[in-house]
Amino acid sequence: MAPLITLLTDFGYRDGYAGIMAGVIHGINPQANIVDMAHNIDAGDIRSAAFVLRQSYPYFPPQSIHVVVVDPGVGSSRKAIVCVTPHRSFVAPDNGVLSPVFRHEECKVYALTNRRYWLETVSSTFHGRDIFAPVAAHLSAGVPVEELGEKFDDYVLFEQPEPVRRENEIIGEILYCDRFGNLVTNFPSGLAGEIKVVHIGKVKVNGIVSTFSEVGPLEPLALVGSHGYIEIAVNGGSAAELTGCGIGARVVALR
Amino acid sequence: MAPLITLLTDFGYRDGYAGIMAGVIHGINPQANIVDMAHNIDAGDIRSAAFVLRQSYPYFPPQSIHVVVVDPGVGSSRKAIVCVTPHRSFVAPDNGVLSPVFRHEECKVYALTNRRYWLETVSSTFHGRDIFAPVAAHLSAGVPVEELGEKFDDYVLFEQPEPVRRENEIIGEILYCDRFGNLVTNFPSGLAGEIKVVHIGKVKVNGIVSTFSEVGPLEPLALVGSHGYIEIAVNGGSAAELTGCGIGARVVALR
Amino acid sequence: MAPLITLLTDFGYRDGYAGIMAGVIHGINPQANIVDMAHNIDAGDIRSAAFVLRQSYPYFPPQSIHVVVVDPGVGSSRKAIVCVTPHRSFVAPDNGVLSPVFRHEECKVYALTNRRYWLETVSSTFHGRDIFAPVAAHLSAGVPVEELGEKFDDYVLFEQPEPVRRENEIIGEILYCDRFGNLVTNFPSGLAGEIKVVHIGKVKVNGIVSTFSEVGPLEPLALVGSHGYIEIAVNGGSAAELTGCGIGARVVALR
Repeated sequence: MAPLITLLTDFGYRDGYAGIMAGVIHGINPQANIVDMAHNIDAGDIRSAAFVLRQSYPYFPPQSIHVVVVDPGVGSSRKAIVCVTPHRSFVAPDNGVLSPVFRHEECKVYALTNRRYWLETVSSTFHGRDIFAPVAAHLSAGVPVEELGEKFDDYVLFEQPEPVRRENEIIGEILYCDRFGNLVTNFPSGLAGEIKVVHIGKVKVNGIVSTFSEVGPLEPLALVGSHGYIEIAVNGGSAAELTGCGIGARVVALR
Repeated sequence: MAPLITLLTDFGYRDGYAGIMAGVIHGINPQANIVDMAHNIDAGDIRSAAFVLRQSYPYFPPQSIHVVVVDPGVGSSRKAIVCVTPHRSFVAPDNGVLSPVFRHEECKVYALTNRRYWLETVSSTFHGRDIFAPVAAHLSAGVPVEELGEKFDDYVLFEQPEPVRRENEIIGEILYCDRFGNLVTNFPSGLAGEIKVVHIGKVKVNGIVSTFSEVGPLEPLALVGSHGYIEIAVNGGSAAELTGCGIGARVVALR
Repeated sequence: MAPLITLLTDFGYRDGYAGIMAGVIHGINPQANIVDMAHNIDAGDIRSAAFVLRQSYPYFPPQSIHVVVVDPGVGSSRKAIVCVTPHRSFVAPDNGVLSPVFRHEECKVYALTNRRYWLETVSSTFHGRDIFAPVAAHLSAGVPVEELGEKFDDYVLFEQPEPVRRENEIIGEILYCDRFGNLVTNFPSGLAGEIKVVHIGKVKVNGIVSTFSEVGPLEPLALVGSHGYIEIAVNGGSAAELTGCGIGARVVALR
């Protein structure tokens, strides 16, 4: 089997942009096996794309190639890159969207400069089609990464905000808000044992529970979510709606 | 060819949850062939998921494996199940979402209890990733269903509301509302011959027509829909909007 | 490898309609390789579907089969057709959605009349499932196109509105508006050199730039887009929102 190629973009499901990338990939490597990770990342929301990437790539088989195109700076001087780790590779713009990979994996990063592996005509607005898709396809077909461009080290890396401990409080923030309105904090699951109360917006949540259904319908709760962080949720409802909070909101835990 | 695995969820297209399930499946069975049935089921809407499942599975080849994850009770004591019929199998939470399968097919149902076929770490909020996807992948790779857990019989089964005949009326309800605003009633297509008028909300529809375009633009109509039931629709518009009605709404046919 | 089959519809991602088409195709040709081009075309929006088709099909490998189901006249007397060009084929209703193919390629067009290659039962509302998907699957499995129906020539063809030159003005219109709110005009990229100013709605844009980031954040710009036309965009924002304009809106360029 050819390696899997996953596509994660903010291209949506109406304009065919992600489908066009699939067409380009199949044209170069007919054996390619493509998984649409998600295409409804909010337009230009690099941090959410980075979060989704971080949550998904560890669940893919070794040698998978993960393409991320959330690229508000397309056509500017921002680099296009490929990042190789011992188990997989990533193709993306150099705008910080690969930050969690840089933080968690042993990485070699190359600037994509060899136009031989791009489409012949390169637009200034759709590098997903003209650069990222063809590069991923060539990678999947066995082209060595060194062929694609030059290694470099000063790639864009965002730090993830860490929780701050202060007396009997831990102050954190919301990293991600999903479709269900679950609010993912930056409190790692290991903190679950010491947290007594969580405050977010005007909502107070008592203790950490194990499942949504441990509280009454439409009541708020905190639990260890599937992402490895403590999440604020509402049983059968949306914590984003109840609290009026979203990504970046402050959350305070009392120990 | 490996059997097809279809995925039907309320995970949406923004958070990567369905894509992660695909990653888990490919990791276990690299030959897997996955079809994304639909992921925009309204959050927690078990009955709509059941309806979509019922409309879709008969069109898939024998041996297909249908995974349904609309699972508001995830992490609670609700069981996870696999249901085997002579021609296909289904993997889902035991919350009634497989009701149409139980009603229409010869079924053997097993509670998923053998953790050997789950991911090693099981969260309390994402069994799609940790239980349903790996079980479906192992099934597709040939693991016998008896290996996955224990047979049982008291699974959750919702009855579908049947139309009630009263003198010259037939009283029914809306089972489903699709993207176009078509309202699917629970009147089976066989009733088409005897229905003279349909009332829904404040709208009155005369007779049953054969196609949308038999009435004027933006006029309401009733016809035998592709689901095998009589549908209320609007030519070039939305019956849901025109009538203000949705799932569960009362509909009255005059004979 | 079997030829690729692409699906472009207005079926959305909630009702399973596109997934059902995939099931039908796999049932007929288990080797089929399906790409979901896009399913969120606005309901019944034939012209946008035609635009997306035109932008996507050239990026797919030879022999691909492109299925388009945006079909508000389903069940009426409109024909179902297959169009064969030297490099690919198209399966769609005869409602103008293939117009760009007719304009740009050497075409042979056949009315689908041979029911042998349809599902046995044909509904009057879902020809995607009952006619278009099975015909595409049989084509991909090697059935000759002549088998599928009769050649004919008076298919529905929409002209694309051409820009009109008037003294020092060029008057055009918006052909497409994408997810990002980029407004694609009908000014071909070749005009970029002679355009000094573009007026759309109450917004005036000076000159043609090369990339989004050449203007300040949230400022409007005009550039040669990836579709081969001049586009109106907003750096980090939506030109559709800023201008209040959409498909069909008038746009005036000063030379």
